[in-house]
Amino acid sequence: MEDHGHPSTKIETGDFGYILEDIPHLSDYIPNLKTYPNPMRFNPAYSVVKQYFIDCDDTVPEKVVVQKNGPRGTHFRRAGPRQNVYFKPDEVHACVVTCGGLCPGLNTVIREIVCALYHMYGVSRVLGIDGGYRGFYSKNTITLTPKFVNDIHKRGGTVLGSSRGGHDKLKIVDSIQDRGINQVYIIGGDGTQKGAAVIYEEIKRRGIKAVVAGIPKTIDNDIAVIDRSFGFDTAVEEAQRAINAAHVEAESAENGIGVVKLMGRYSGFIAMYATLASRDVDLCLIPESPFYLEGRGGLLEYVERRLKENGHMVIVVAEGAGQELVAQSNSSIAKDASGNKLLKDVGMWLSDNIKAHFAKKKHMHITLKYIDPTYMIRAVPSNASDNIYCTLLAQSCVHGVMAGFTGFTSGLVHGRHTYIPFSRIVDHPNKVVITDRMWARVLSSTNQPSFLGPKEVLEFQKVEEQRIQLLEGENSSISTSGTNFECTSLLRCFSCS
Amino acid sequence: MEDHGHPSTKIETGDFGYILEDIPHLSDYIPNLKTYPNPMRFNPAYSVVKQYFIDCDDTVPEKVVVQKNGPRGTHFRRAGPRQNVYFKPDEVHACVVTCGGLCPGLNTVIREIVCALYHMYGVSRVLGIDGGYRGFYSKNTITLTPKFVNDIHKRGGTVLGSSRGGHDKLKIVDSIQDRGINQVYIIGGDGTQKGAAVIYEEIKRRGIKAVVAGIPKTIDNDIAVIDRSFGFDTAVEEAQRAINAAHVEAESAENGIGVVKLMGRYSGFIAMYATLASRDVDLCLIPESPFYLEGRGGLLEYVERRLKENGHMVIVVAEGAGQELVAQSNSSIAKDASGNKLLKDVGMWLSDNIKAHFAKKKHMHITLKYIDPTYMIRAVPSNASDNIYCTLLAQSCVHGVMAGFTGFTSGLVHGRHTYIPFSRIVDHPNKVVITDRMWARVLSSTNQPSFLGPKEVLEFQKVEEQRIQLLEGENSSISTSGTNFECTSLLRCFSCS
Amino acid sequence: MEDHGHPSTKIETGDFGYILEDIPHLSDYIPNLKTYPNPMRFNPAYSVVKQYFIDCDDTVPEKVVVQKNGPRGTHFRRAGPRQNVYFKPDEVHACVVTCGGLCPGLNTVIREIVCALYHMYGVSRVLGIDGGYRGFYSKNTITLTPKFVNDIHKRGGTVLGSSRGGHDKLKIVDSIQDRGINQVYIIGGDGTQKGAAVIYEEIKRRGIKAVVAGIPKTIDNDIAVIDRSFGFDTAVEEAQRAINAAHVEAESAENGIGVVKLMGRYSGFIAMYATLASRDVDLCLIPESPFYLEGRGGLLEYVERRLKENGHMVIVVAEGAGQELVAQSNSSIAKDASGNKLLKDVGMWLSDNIKAHFAKKKHMHITLKYIDPTYMIRAVPSNASDNIYCTLLAQSCVHGVMAGFTGFTSGLVHGRHTYIPFSRIVDHPNKVVITDRMWARVLSSTNQPSFLGPKEVLEFQKVEEQRIQLLEGENSSISTSGTNFECTSLLRCFSCS
Amino acid sequence: MEDHGHPSTKIETGDFGYILEDIPHLSDYIPNLKTYPNPMRFNPAYSVVKQYFIDCDDTVPEKVVVQKNGPRGTHFRRAGPRQNVYFKPDEVHACVVTCGGLCPGLNTVIREIVCALYHMYGVSRVLGIDGGYRGFYSKNTITLTPKFVNDIHKRGGTVLGSSRGGHDKLKIVDSIQDRGINQVYIIGGDGTQKGAAVIYEEIKRRGIKAVVAGIPKTIDNDIAVIDRSFGFDTAVEEAQRAINAAHVEAESAENGIGVVKLMGRYSGFIAMYATLASRDVDLCLIPESPFYLEGRGGLLEYVERRLKENGHMVIVVAEGAGQELVAQSNSSIAKDASGNKLLKDVGMWLSDNIKAHFAKKKHMHITLKYIDPTYMIRAVPSNASDNIYCTLLAQSCVHGVMAGFTGFTSGLVHGRHTYIPFSRIVDHPNKVVITDRMWARVLSSTNQPSFLGPKEVLEFQKVEEQRIQLLEGENSSISTSGTNFECTSLLRCFSCS
Repeated sequence: MEDHGHPSTKIETGDFGYILEDIPHLSDYIPNLKTYPNPMRFNPAYSVVKQYFIDCDDTVPEKVVVQKNGPRGTHFRRAGPRQNVYFKPDEVHACVVTCGGLCPGLNTVIREIVCALYHMYGVSRVLGIDGGYRGFYSKNTITLTPKFVNDIHKRGGTVLGSSRGGHDKLKIVDSIQDRGINQVYIIGGDGTQKGAAVIYEEIKRRGIKAVVAGIPKTIDNDIAVIDRSFGFDTAVEEAQRAINAAHVEAESAENGIGVVKLMGRYSGFIAMYATLASRDVDLCLIPESPFYLEGRGGLLEYVERRLKENGHMVIVVAEGAGQELVAQSNSSIAKDASGNKLLKDVGMWLSDNIKAHFAKKKHMHITLKYIDPTYMIRAVPSNASDNIYCTLLAQSCVHGVMAGFTGFTSGLVHGRHTYIPFSRIVDHPNKVVITDRMWARVLSSTNQPSFLGPKEVLEFQKVEEQRIQLLEGENSSISTSGTNFECTSLLRCFSCS
Repeated sequence: MEDHGHPSTKIETGDFGYILEDIPHLSDYIPNLKTYPNPMRFNPAYSVVKQYFIDCDDTVPEKVVVQKNGPRGTHFRRAGPRQNVYFKPDEVHACVVTCGGLCPGLNTVIREIVCALYHMYGVSRVLGIDGGYRGFYSKNTITLTPKFVNDIHKRGGTVLGSSRGGHDKLKIVDSIQDRGINQVYIIGGDGTQKGAAVIYEEIKRRGIKAVVAGIPKTIDNDIAVIDRSFGFDTAVEEAQRAINAAHVEAESAENGIGVVKLMGRYSGFIAMYATLASRDVDLCLIPESPFYLEGRGGLLEYVERRLKENGHMVIVVAEGAGQELVAQSNSSIAKDASGNKLLKDVGMWLSDNIKAHFAKKKHMHITLKYIDPTYMIRAVPSNASDNIYCTLLAQSCVHGVMAGFTGFTSGLVHGRHTYIPFSRIVDHPNKVVITDRMWARVLSSTNQPSFLGPKEVLEFQKVEEQRIQLLEGENSSISTSGTNFECTSLLRCFSCS
Repeated sequence: MEDHGHPSTKIETGDFGYILEDIPHLSDYIPNLKTYPNPMRFNPAYSVVKQYFIDCDDTVPEKVVVQKNGPRGTHFRRAGPRQNVYFKPDEVHACVVTCGGLCPGLNTVIREIVCALYHMYGVSRVLGIDGGYRGFYSKNTITLTPKFVNDIHKRGGTVLGSSRGGHDKLKIVDSIQDRGINQVYIIGGDGTQKGAAVIYEEIKRRGIKAVVAGIPKTIDNDIAVIDRSFGFDTAVEEAQRAINAAHVEAESAENGIGVVKLMGRYSGFIAMYATLASRDVDLCLIPESPFYLEGRGGLLEYVERRLKENGHMVIVVAEGAGQELVAQSNSSIAKDASGNKLLKDVGMWLSDNIKAHFAKKKHMHITLKYIDPTYMIRAVPSNASDNIYCTLLAQSCVHGVMAGFTGFTSGLVHGRHTYIPFSRIVDHPNKVVITDRMWARVLSSTNQPSFLGPKEVLEFQKVEEQRIQLLEGENSSISTSGTNFECTSLLRCFSCS
Repeated sequence: MEDHGHPSTKIETGDFGYILEDIPHLSDYIPNLKTYPNPMRFNPAYSVVKQYFIDCDDTVPEKVVVQKNGPRGTHFRRAGPRQNVYFKPDEVHACVVTCGGLCPGLNTVIREIVCALYHMYGVSRVLGIDGGYRGFYSKNTITLTPKFVNDIHKRGGTVLGSSRGGHDKLKIVDSIQDRGINQVYIIGGDGTQKGAAVIYEEIKRRGIKAVVAGIPKTIDNDIAVIDRSFGFDTAVEEAQRAINAAHVEAESAENGIGVVKLMGRYSGFIAMYATLASRDVDLCLIPESPFYLEGRGGLLEYVERRLKENGHMVIVVAEGAGQELVAQSNSSIAKDASGNKLLKDVGMWLSDNIKAHFAKKKHMHITLKYIDPTYMIRAVPSNASDNIYCTLLAQSCVHGVMAGFTGFTSGLVHGRHTYIPFSRIVDHPNKVVITDRMWARVLSSTNQPSFLGPKEVLEFQKVEEQRIQLLEGENSSISTSGTNFECTSLLRCFSCS
């Protein structure tokens, strides 16, 4: 077992190209740790379960589309309860913290971490950190009991409060050490998980027996490797309301245009899935797909054509779409406390540009309505599907922590719960790949132009022609997609048909 | 390539235990079929997509939890568009039929088959068969166009109508032949897919160039192999309403009991997931888990204890639960037109028994409210998640059909769309495995007894003890779950943590 | 001021036929009661309100359709705060009890009684009686504070619990006296209000300074005089779900029939309004309108005709419809603990009869789905409109109680809150008048037959002809509807156009 | 019968101060018009209705809170079918037009005008004017049939389209005359009804036998006289979603502030009722109640105090609130095509000011989320209650039109449908009276300051003290609220308790 590159990843290899990207363990830096039989052995609910302990060797492949003779590729460790645990129940002192923006399901994750610790492992000391990372050192903690969390999954938001920023690594680890906390559950997005990695490193450096586990949270679904982030399903569902309203407003006016801005700073998953689920959208703009306003093949030309054809149209725009265009027409771009760039509101920018365009045309009066449902989407309670997902995510995380793993995040890979090294989560945000079939489905459903200029199209076409000739000539025995296949859509459930 | 057992399955093997359970193709029984370039090559929406054609060798493993040195196991053919198709667009004459009970998403599947044929493949002759199988020979057809289906996904039910039974194989194939139909899309449950297999066999026997493809439909999620059936997610969501109502009614009365009957003749997936999503349920009864009413450890004892502890309780019961008990106390069991057994209403039977039990107890007056939300659940439109799922399911199916595959069903396996032989779908209905961790989670969340008599418990315990000794003794180097691992929960997204 | 007939009503007359049906007051039987300035005078929120005290002489007419020279008729005392109150805040010991079945808004009424007492009048001792009337003597009380009730309006049901029956008058009044309770707020239906009247009489007989006030609760809207009962609006809204489901099920089957049973033992208001709001209903059956199954002009004939015309149909049936028919085909009719008759389930009876009818017809196969959404409707939280209505109802009641009135119910009359004598509420339940325009609107919207036999029709026609001749002959100078006008629909907001 | 002041109002007086504000009739300017028996006489649905014809003398009082000896006051003509009509069914050529912004229920009103004309009166020529007033002369018409309108009430928006402005009186009347239209149904707000009055005058001037009837539409509920405007109930319901989201966002952040902007340019009814229904709001700002930001008793001081007390707060602001403040800090105010002033967005202005205030305070970091749900509220379909209301409003209007009345609007007064002269609707928009008890209830529920400066408070207090002394001194025999009582809240159902 050797360490590669990123400090928190351990690579193990096997036959036929099998690779395991493993996660750290307390025993990596603390020798001679005592283990205990898993208390679940004595839980009546689990007494009839044949395989309630995960086999140590169970792993889940990163890629699930395989060919007869292809290499086996990267795998992750399967999540689940182990036979032995590294904590005695009455020795555990756990804490839970939620950071960053709201996301449906936060309360369910909190609830289920608490319930899993209490009911599965007999742990009774669980603290809530108030108001995000900064709460470790600036606020009192909240005592979390099954009674306290009993109904919180029916409410939106987070009962712990949240905030952005506040990674004062040393102060946080001091607080963990001073309070005697030995299990840290961190729920948050990309920046938060980076912070978790730093906290893990510092704890390891100090040689403390305390584990750090992350549960990735992003309503935008822009986290790599995992199938989907919790709350995403609820968000796509809730976004339908806004799209419906935009559609009604557009239909009821002459040359009516309904513009809906959806979440997605760096990735357009919500916009893309909400568009596919609705089927009322005529134009979907996402950060990954550049577009331009003026001239032939431009957005304004398409809007004009669509209004002439159909009398009205609905535009869905992810908040991070067209940032370079917005930036050109504005001045500065600020950052918020977590260091996230504060992007100009593309929805208003787009609306203003469309209005200005048609104001110049005497003959074509338009009515544009702009809807920003962001906070109404973020604040709803999670739906049934996300509720179950959050439950299993929380339970997986608790199992891993009790088993002494640290420096990892819980994540669903091809429908299986796994433990993934921090490095894989934080380094490469997930993005919509616009040369993938899923985006093509959006283009096909909206009939919108691809906004590729003549040069880009030519380039793409050349590449494609070569590929097709190759494929046709040889009846597929040489696969172009073989080893370098890169299924880039994160929502594996929906990604490729 | 050889045929094994079931006529519609073709088995192909590879290195390291790789097995492909392949599906039939028109060319299996019609020689020298002409192929054509896939019209999607010329679709602008797909022009920038790198890999819009699926590699012929892409397959998806049935099992995704693997070990370093385990065999590779069974695989299915990956779904998606092929470079060449076996139909010229203007030669295609497709038909769509929906059979059996309602399920959220039926209209979306119909819509997207029509749209995929029109927009992706340029096909313009698509018929709807009115009112299920029987409509092939007893009714006029409905002309399906993109305009006709444009808004149908916003409505529940099926615009084609549906019915049970009516598998007059010869009449159906006669009608297909007489009308010149060469693509038959069949949406329906277990019985319907069996019918589809028979129709495929007859078409093959007659040597007709017509493909038969199934899209499995069951709100109960009791179809083997696939991750989940469409509409299931919506059903679990909608079931929350009924559980909430039962909870409110129970809480507002002294010794209030709310009983909710949910769908599930032979499998308890909806009951199980609705219970896990709600967290307000105190007892969940499913067909797979036997229970008994009277005596120590029995249901009535538990109900009494729970009321004394908590003052009220919520019971969720799948329609097929406890059938042997119901049968004992009643006389006959009829069958409906499709041959499905008409089971006695277990919800009413259970309610009556609970009432009778407490009527005998002078000191304990109960108030029981029974809710049967079945038709209110079945009839809602599909939610956003099911809408997208249905879209991709329909598109996958169309791609396979255009590529000349036949005798198959479309299905999601580990988040990937695949083509599965009929035999795998119809022979072994999916069931909740009560010795699996998912069911243990339900027991743990409800605190209900496992209803295993002293004898069963002893047996289970013996088996488990042996297993644990084995595992502990050898530090897992011999895994009991190794080769015979059988993850039995169909909802892979949620199944194992 | 003289007492007429019913002990709790005081009649006062004025000029031009003005009649005031007044309510009792503590001072009627306790002489020389001290009064205090209303504490609201010192509440900043009310400091800018010009008329925050109701003029003692304000009254509201029972009939609001008037003619130039008609008499003024019956009036009720207007509700609202009085300048002086008969209780010192710290002397008040109030209690709230909820009885009978659930109804949306119960929690809002409880919440607002507590908040009005605390915030408007500075009262701090409010008890909740647990589980209905019977809780007065068999259970501990619940302490109600603004904090306790803060979020209860967002939940269905009643936090106090409820039960039927239990009018042990003497025990209840003993408990009131023993606990030193001097304000009793009773929320419940017809039977409950009768009980309240009895409690009031007993308290008066004993000469205790304790007021009894009722807030009428009936989801069926069958309470006389008032515009509508709280929760009715929410119930009609929620009933749409069931009707929609029935419509989808019916449309998706050949000769599909969806049957929805709605609440309404003795009056069909929910069925009538749900039918009018939906517009998808083909037949609406209510207790007030008799019908028959067999023969010419009968229900079965209409069902058959409607299916032939339209292929499917939706039937809404109030639970109390056709009871004489159901009774004929069954044996006994029981009563529940409150003395309400337990009627046979008309929905199942009707479904069975329709199925049996078509089973005899070889040529016409039907598919009937029966939906009983009763508990799902009752258990939802009140909608915004009912929330506001409940708030004002509760505040009105508190104002009246503080002002020393007793033996009354709060009620909305022509959009004005009033105090109504018990006798007016309990003696004559409200019913749909089938010779009123509202019911005619239902008949017109469903096209259903009036189910009047040849004899009845003849009779009606004769009466009508006379009336029309009369009207036409004299240019309306003699109005038939003049003095005996009887607008019989309770939902005044909607009643007459 | 004499004409007073406004040309479209006819005043009739009676005994004891009875006044009837009557509406114009075709026979006012066209002599010797022929009448016909009302076709409803022969409609089977109405054959059993005793009083299906409204008595000519039926009227409804404007004020319903009365005193024994008070004068009878103003009355309006009761709506409903008359015995004789002034149009033969086959001679009728009706048109319907919708103007201004969207409002839930527009489609129901359209549907029910069409259905009433077809089914009640046997009229078969009904046109829809496309896109508001301007559609009379610039667009083709839409043929409206019962089939076309059958399902439109389930959708938001208006199937006819709408627009602002376009009162080219002469062109519109030319179009009416040229197309031979003789019934004009105009659905729209204040500006639209003014336009309708002008169209009526011009038609009268030309002596054409064509009636003009209005159905007042304003989601803001700012129309005088009537109980409530259609769609208002739905809007208040839908606004709860946004308030809930704001509450969740606020609760989950440190010093979280959720700001929700609701509709209401000149009146704050939606804000006021949404606040009362929600009970989560800490500050409600409406156009009628001035406020100030800085200094003692100012908004910023209150926000700071509330955050310190409670950690978070929710602000609801009507779009027209604080316009003078917004205007001071900005430059120009434009008008839209209908002449409505385009006010600056107060929600953003307020958010910016609050943020700026706390940015200056080093010690208090706030998180403010601003939600503008306007278009999501406007675009929903009407709820069950509004559906029924719209139905009766449309039917009333059709009855009046068939009876030859013209120049009137349909409106609900104290729960009774009436005909109201245009002048009463358009001249005095309805406003929240901040010295009324309803606004006091809001203040009491939010605990917000009244924002009255020391001077105003002093003034108010003086007036109040005098009043109270007066009342106390004389035991109410002289009522200050007697003759000049002015119940100023339009929502009579809720207005006074």
